[in-house]
Amino acid sequence: MTSTLKTFMEEQLPIIESHMYEFVEDLTAPTSLKEAMLYSLKAGGKRVRPLFVIAVMEYLNNPTKAGYTVGAAVEMIHTYSLIHDDLPSMDNDDFRRGKPTNHKVFGEAAAILAGDALNTLPFGILARLEDVSAEQKVELIRLLSETAGAEGMVGGQVLDIEGEKRQLTLDELVRVHENKTGAILRFSIEAGAILAGATQEQRNLFVEYAYHIGLAFQIKDDILDIEGTTEELGKTAGKDVASEKSTYPALLTLDGAKEKLAEHATKAHACLEKIPSNSKYLADLTDYIINRNK
Amino acid sequence: MTSTLKTFMEEQLPIIESHMYEFVEDLTAPTSLKEAMLYSLKAGGKRVRPLFVIAVMEYLNNPTKAGYTVGAAVEMIHTYSLIHDDLPSMDNDDFRRGKPTNHKVFGEAAAILAGDALNTLPFGILARLEDVSAEQKVELIRLLSETAGAEGMVGGQVLDIEGEKRQLTLDELVRVHENKTGAILRFSIEAGAILAGATQEQRNLFVEYAYHIGLAFQIKDDILDIEGTTEELGKTAGKDVASEKSTYPALLTLDGAKEKLAEHATKAHACLEKIPSNSKYLADLTDYIINRNK
Repeated sequence: MTSTLKTFMEEQLPIIESHMYEFVEDLTAPTSLKEAMLYSLKAGGKRVRPLFVIAVMEYLNNPTKAGYTVGAAVEMIHTYSLIHDDLPSMDNDDFRRGKPTNHKVFGEAAAILAGDALNTLPFGILARLEDVSAEQKVELIRLLSETAGAEGMVGGQVLDIEGEKRQLTLDELVRVHENKTGAILRFSIEAGAILAGATQEQRNLFVEYAYHIGLAFQIKDDILDIEGTTEELGKTAGKDVASEKSTYPALLTLDGAKEKLAEHATKAHACLEKIPSNSKYLADLTDYIINRNK
Repeated sequence: MTSTLKTFMEEQLPIIESHMYEFVEDLTAPTSLKEAMLYSLKAGGKRVRPLFVIAVMEYLNNPTKAGYTVGAAVEMIHTYSLIHDDLPSMDNDDFRRGKPTNHKVFGEAAAILAGDALNTLPFGILARLEDVSAEQKVELIRLLSETAGAEGMVGGQVLDIEGEKRQLTLDELVRVHENKTGAILRFSIEAGAILAGATQEQRNLFVEYAYHIGLAFQIKDDILDIEGTTEELGKTAGKDVASEKSTYPALLTLDGAKEKLAEHATKAHACLEKIPSNSKYLADLTDYIINRNK
């Protein structure tokens, strides 16, 4: 990670996080529900999605407070999806980022409901955005509903579960990841572009960029499952191979997957280069996604 | 049920339902996910929430197509909550309206995801409403997020689960139902008022009306659990008494609950009488809620 990106993240992360916790702390809701919601929000993670919202706005030289709010909203959607994915009837994971999963601490019913509440809240947060036009709010909400729901993340999770039963083709695998992880990443990037007042041409380039960085993100995850250690990852390494899961290395060999990763990285950078900017954060964040070791 | 209400429902229900199914059928999403979503949407029910949206708009003499769209959105939220409530870790119900519950047919993982998708979709539907201003859409989305989430329906479900472990006071019971079932009913009624261009004074009266009809609805449910039969209800009668659940009859005696029901009915009608109208549907729907036998 470059020192400028490190400084950027160290500056931004506390703001994103405190903003996000505040939305939940301020709710007039049962204490136990707020506790379960906050437990998973506070369980950490790289906060990649909010960072993308803000880095894109910086890239367009138009960062505003709304970026933090939209970042908090998208991180809540991501967190709800993790809570539900970890449930016994889904991936049945006991640990996430080295901590017991939500249902291990609060029980299954509470975990399902904490996830539900974290799915619903972001839409209200977007509707209450300050200094953003009603038209832009509607556009952001439409986009979040599409990318988070049946046509995006939830649909991708369904394809992923169905894919576990058989060997997927590369096209099928791409489709799983375009939806399961790519869609919400795309939302983050496109939302940043919308908030910063991007032209339609710039927005199209950001969507293309999002496609490549989304797949790069997932290929890197698959590679780390093989090359990373359980300690570094905070989750069980080698789980994909053990479960014979369809992954990029399984379909392309480890070297083939690394080549594919490099290809998407090059294409992602090429999109950015077509949008002139003085900010380096987004390019650095792109490299970080590709080179990270956890 | 009056013959005018019967005609109204027979005219409106097919429009509401076909509109709602179309939103799901049109999704570019995995077939299995759409099937699971449609299964529960098609499992029937009284469609009380969409009927309220439309009846309120009729009451204000301003029915539009948007009422059906908002009705579809709110019925999806209601349906997702039923799918999740029925799960083994929640109420563990095998049957709903005489049909196997979603997870009994599709499995738990698919049921959770179908519920999640039905939680997310309505916000996109509201964002895409036609012939409604961006400001009104934002207002509807804010209201739906509040009433469906931690501060409303989901919070009420948490209170309900926690309340099962002990005897609730009447105030506590009212708070459970204000949130668990009342909040979404309030959304339906307030949304109808917003769409029909109600004045703030009218809107306040409708919110007060919603409070009373919401509690009346729940008290009637509790009474039916004692007086109804399993055949009529399409669910196991007498379950509340068997599980020693806190209910209005349990706290107030059956006669006391009936008195309370009549009290809320009178107050609900009093609110409506302060808003002059030529339409009888809403008053008839109010009586139907109170007098229904299932």
